[in-house]
Amino acid sequence: MVNQVQRVEDTWRTCSKSDSSGASNSGGESSKESSRSSTPVLDTDRTDRLRDKMRRRTESGDHWFSLEFFPPRTASGAVNLISRFDRMGSGGPLFIDITWHPAGDPGSDKETSSMMIASTAVNYCGLESILHLTCCNQTKEKITGYLSKAKRLGLKNIMALRGDPMGADWEEEEAGFNYATDLVKHIRCEFDDYFDICVAGYPTGHPEAESYDEDLRHLKEKVDAGADFIITQLFFRADTFLKFVRDCRAIGITCPILPGIFPIQGYQSLRQLVKLSKLEVPEEIMRVIEPIKDNDAAIRNYGIEQAVGMCRVLLESGEVPGLHFYTLNREVATMEVLRQLGLWIEDPRRTLPWAVSAHPKRKVEDVRPIFWASRPKSYIYRTQDWDDFPNGRWGNSSSPAFGELNDYYLFYLKSKSSKDALLKMWGEELTSEQSVYEVFTSYITAQPNVAGHKVMCLPWNDDPLAPETNLLKDELDKVNRRGVLTINSQPSINGKPSSDPIVGWGPPGGYVFQKAYLEFFTSSENVTALLKVLKKYEPRVNYHIVNVHGQNTTNAHDMQPNAVTWGIFPGREIVQPTVVDPVSFLYWKDEAFALWIEQWANLYEDESPSRMIIKYIHDNYFLVNLVDNDFPLDNCLWQVIDDMFELLDNPPEEQPAEQPNDEQSDKEQPGK
Amino acid sequence: MVNQVQRVEDTWRTCSKSDSSGASNSGGESSKESSRSSTPVLDTDRTDRLRDKMRRRTESGDHWFSLEFFPPRTASGAVNLISRFDRMGSGGPLFIDITWHPAGDPGSDKETSSMMIASTAVNYCGLESILHLTCCNQTKEKITGYLSKAKRLGLKNIMALRGDPMGADWEEEEAGFNYATDLVKHIRCEFDDYFDICVAGYPTGHPEAESYDEDLRHLKEKVDAGADFIITQLFFRADTFLKFVRDCRAIGITCPILPGIFPIQGYQSLRQLVKLSKLEVPEEIMRVIEPIKDNDAAIRNYGIEQAVGMCRVLLESGEVPGLHFYTLNREVATMEVLRQLGLWIEDPRRTLPWAVSAHPKRKVEDVRPIFWASRPKSYIYRTQDWDDFPNGRWGNSSSPAFGELNDYYLFYLKSKSSKDALLKMWGEELTSEQSVYEVFTSYITAQPNVAGHKVMCLPWNDDPLAPETNLLKDELDKVNRRGVLTINSQPSINGKPSSDPIVGWGPPGGYVFQKAYLEFFTSSENVTALLKVLKKYEPRVNYHIVNVHGQNTTNAHDMQPNAVTWGIFPGREIVQPTVVDPVSFLYWKDEAFALWIEQWANLYEDESPSRMIIKYIHDNYFLVNLVDNDFPLDNCLWQVIDDMFELLDNPPEEQPAEQPNDEQSDKEQPGK
Repeated sequence: MVNQVQRVEDTWRTCSKSDSSGASNSGGESSKESSRSSTPVLDTDRTDRLRDKMRRRTESGDHWFSLEFFPPRTASGAVNLISRFDRMGSGGPLFIDITWHPAGDPGSDKETSSMMIASTAVNYCGLESILHLTCCNQTKEKITGYLSKAKRLGLKNIMALRGDPMGADWEEEEAGFNYATDLVKHIRCEFDDYFDICVAGYPTGHPEAESYDEDLRHLKEKVDAGADFIITQLFFRADTFLKFVRDCRAIGITCPILPGIFPIQGYQSLRQLVKLSKLEVPEEIMRVIEPIKDNDAAIRNYGIEQAVGMCRVLLESGEVPGLHFYTLNREVATMEVLRQLGLWIEDPRRTLPWAVSAHPKRKVEDVRPIFWASRPKSYIYRTQDWDDFPNGRWGNSSSPAFGELNDYYLFYLKSKSSKDALLKMWGEELTSEQSVYEVFTSYITAQPNVAGHKVMCLPWNDDPLAPETNLLKDELDKVNRRGVLTINSQPSINGKPSSDPIVGWGPPGGYVFQKAYLEFFTSSENVTALLKVLKKYEPRVNYHIVNVHGQNTTNAHDMQPNAVTWGIFPGREIVQPTVVDPVSFLYWKDEAFALWIEQWANLYEDESPSRMIIKYIHDNYFLVNLVDNDFPLDNCLWQVIDDMFELLDNPPEEQPAEQPNDEQSDKEQPGK
Repeated sequence: MVNQVQRVEDTWRTCSKSDSSGASNSGGESSKESSRSSTPVLDTDRTDRLRDKMRRRTESGDHWFSLEFFPPRTASGAVNLISRFDRMGSGGPLFIDITWHPAGDPGSDKETSSMMIASTAVNYCGLESILHLTCCNQTKEKITGYLSKAKRLGLKNIMALRGDPMGADWEEEEAGFNYATDLVKHIRCEFDDYFDICVAGYPTGHPEAESYDEDLRHLKEKVDAGADFIITQLFFRADTFLKFVRDCRAIGITCPILPGIFPIQGYQSLRQLVKLSKLEVPEEIMRVIEPIKDNDAAIRNYGIEQAVGMCRVLLESGEVPGLHFYTLNREVATMEVLRQLGLWIEDPRRTLPWAVSAHPKRKVEDVRPIFWASRPKSYIYRTQDWDDFPNGRWGNSSSPAFGELNDYYLFYLKSKSSKDALLKMWGEELTSEQSVYEVFTSYITAQPNVAGHKVMCLPWNDDPLAPETNLLKDELDKVNRRGVLTINSQPSINGKPSSDPIVGWGPPGGYVFQKAYLEFFTSSENVTALLKVLKKYEPRVNYHIVNVHGQNTTNAHDMQPNAVTWGIFPGREIVQPTVVDPVSFLYWKDEAFALWIEQWANLYEDESPSRMIIKYIHDNYFLVNLVDNDFPLDNCLWQVIDDMFELLDNPPEEQPAEQPNDEQSDKEQPGK
């Protein structure tokens, strides 16, 4: 019996071992003294390291892909690249990688650095990422510094490269980094098994190598020094790669070898790349391209067709579990190739209702307050210093220690729209609170505003309405017109399959549930009426009402969090990833009110009427959240709002004899 | 804003402060480094200390009651008293108290000691309990020893008494304990605020006091020394008590004063009590009783009527929030008085689906494996050494460290039935496995066995079928007849109101859910067929199959627990109090198999055929648990069993050509 239990424990330990290696702080709620460990998260992809994911996918016969990007040259390029990560991340790459150019200050804190871009991809886009690193002409201290910084930022994978020697006078240094092998050894020596290491393979031999065979021997050295897998330089014929793999296997290289795929996207970019990589474009390709070299579309179409054909041969060979794409930071060609190969995930499954982070210390995180639903990057930013992340349940957060959000202009938190575009959407000139209501209504209905522009975003929502919110469109339209300015909502759901395309999340075979939620700004007059109405809905509706000064009213029991999204899955404990937490709400409140000023009022001149209107709303409106606890019944929150309007439209006549009845409700006016 | 948050934090801290004082180890999963505290349990009664519960109930205008018992004289008396606690506990006393008789070795580990009885009430019956303690003729060391032991056992409340001086030569000692006041001071001095302290009040003055006023002053001293509330000696007229309360208030005693109610239950017990307490029975009572002194029933009826009348006066006075009953360890009279007063809870609400313990370190406990559903005391016993109790979720229990269950005869774990009664129910002589099946069937159907006796319990269930299990009676009957010997089951439930009289639990306004569960012993032939059948039910059905030797087969993912009971409540996170945990199952298995031998086989002579039959089942049968994950659909577990019988009745003909198909299923036979 004891042996038996031992055995099952070992099984579990084996599963979880790879979790904890790597993470400097594994988080979770288990303490050393406790015999209880934390529940593994739903998606093993969140806990496995890259090489294990790769092995698992390969063993299951699944094909997969990965995407290479280079760091942007400008700050606005960084904003664009991050939103490209979000879009291309949804197609399901196993990982992305970010190149490293010593001339571009790649290890700095600039928004254009490789380090910052890779860190953003991991932390804010939730993408498994490989950071390239070149060692040529670098001191050990410098390299160790980069690696320590990468580890601190949550990066877990390094592509170890020699890099191009700078200047013609480069010579081998006795104790320095002369080859990628030295870098691989250094990483293993200084960081043990923390990083997964990738190295480069050259299917036609490295241009500087003495021979193809000599180059293969170098590759073997890199792998023997501790590399986990190989990504190859680009090539133009499937046979080139397949021969290379055979040759690698023949000399004992057993790790995964991923083909680098380069869909030809234009004549100039092809020439440039070929020059840089000292490759020859095969005769049969040049013959097609030369006649159409001025026709970009034709070349791209050919490139797609050529890449698809080559990839098919590779995948069918049985030697290739996954394909690595040189995207050149473009979307169209790579996505099209992947679509034609059936590798692009059109309808991505959500692990949880919100976008996860790939930082190792957050791998156990499986619950968040609903408030940041449309601003997940801001939530990650404000909780980046936490050591523990809630897992299994939120618990009573007596001191959630949210960081201040002072810099609204961090490139990964910034609106994708320019000031000009925002003014067109939100109004060059506001004339009244009503004109603000109209902006909200236009956003909800996706109808053009008075100036004829579609409102694609609001300060609280940088994207158009989520499909789920669309389910509530008619009701939202109606209430926004009357100054119930909604910024977050979800319908109630009573056990839909976890595979539901709109509201589903988590593994298949489960059921998901939601309590209806509504969050909005509204005037203090409305709030006074609302509080009277809410008495009829006790204890069905939980509310929390706060203004910018922190005057707040709530009926939350003991300031406890209320789970508003949960899922029941086969063979698991309940997952409850979204809560309405009264304490966190007061931190969210700061951010929600500040966005009026930072994102909207500041578009206008000081003292301008437009700015004054936004400022008035900021200073006087209340932020309200409502939860309908009775999820199996029809959502009553619209009825609550209707009742509020009804009360405002038809106030009860105040007769002296009845006044005592009103005393109590007066007391509950917020701010009194 | 910071002030605002501070305020709400303080609110929460105030709520939770009283939780942690008192408990030597507050348990839960929060660590010191973490900013996250554990979720408060559903029922504040579990976390509040007695004086706070009393205050809360009093403030809300609720009336309540408490019950006094004395320790039993014999071991079998202890078994009976514990089952009386379970029955009378269900009526909802605010607390019970256990008297202390220095002559009866009250602080020992004997099953008849006050200490052990109070500890059992707290730990195993989940009752808030007060332990009496007398100080007269005791050393400080001895008293401190008793108090330390009480604290260690989870007791939190002491009734501080002087006790009767032993022998005639008693004199006041200068530094010793001469009065209860000395004991109160000592408790506060040595144990600070850990214990809630109760003291005795004498509505007609203590018999040894110089005067009524002198006695009142002594009472004031006791309260000033740190007592939290007063329970009075019995009295016969409401006026006596109400005057006493007025007199107490007049001299500045402000704490709660609970009237001690003594329903007259018989002539002799009344005479004895009156003699001991030196009270006079009023004329008007004696006048009624004397003529009927030989008619027990008549006296009891009068006693009930008299007590009800007096209690009504007391409750209506507005001075009495709760009533304390001197039960004399009897049920009928006290329960009848309480029923007539409307204080007895006929249909007790369950806080959780299982019976909670009142040990302070377990106050956060809100999840348990389902296996011990019918043996909660055994579960508490086997986990008594845990420091942390699962709260919010079970988590992966890689090392749950269950204690061994060696002593099946601890008085609080023992069957309520005698060996003779068990033989009648389970068969004086067993002739085959089939005769064992018939015992199970009789238990399920509540029909007499072949010898004409009703089977009221099984080794795994000391009580008749739960109302909930009764819902499954027909199906259970059918499968037990064929050797699927069920010992635990629950139906699936898809969102019934938490107030449902059969399956409801937790606070009102919520919804409860269950996954269908079935646990049974069955032969290895059946298991072989079952495993073939179960393939059709992947991943809908989770199973775990193990024999006494620990050979086990499961499809539990990563050995994770599966939540099978959960509830959704207004304004709260999800509560998931029952899990099927694959690791704990292997510990339960030991107990479940051992019960065949300890409780059943050992009833028969060594080497007798009856004993051999039970031994054969113990050695060869498997213990199986099944969970149907698809709780919104009709329970499929009966279909699984039907399919198993169908396969056994009509085995597919083994044709040589089809044999390869069977290979795989062969491999999955447990034990191969």
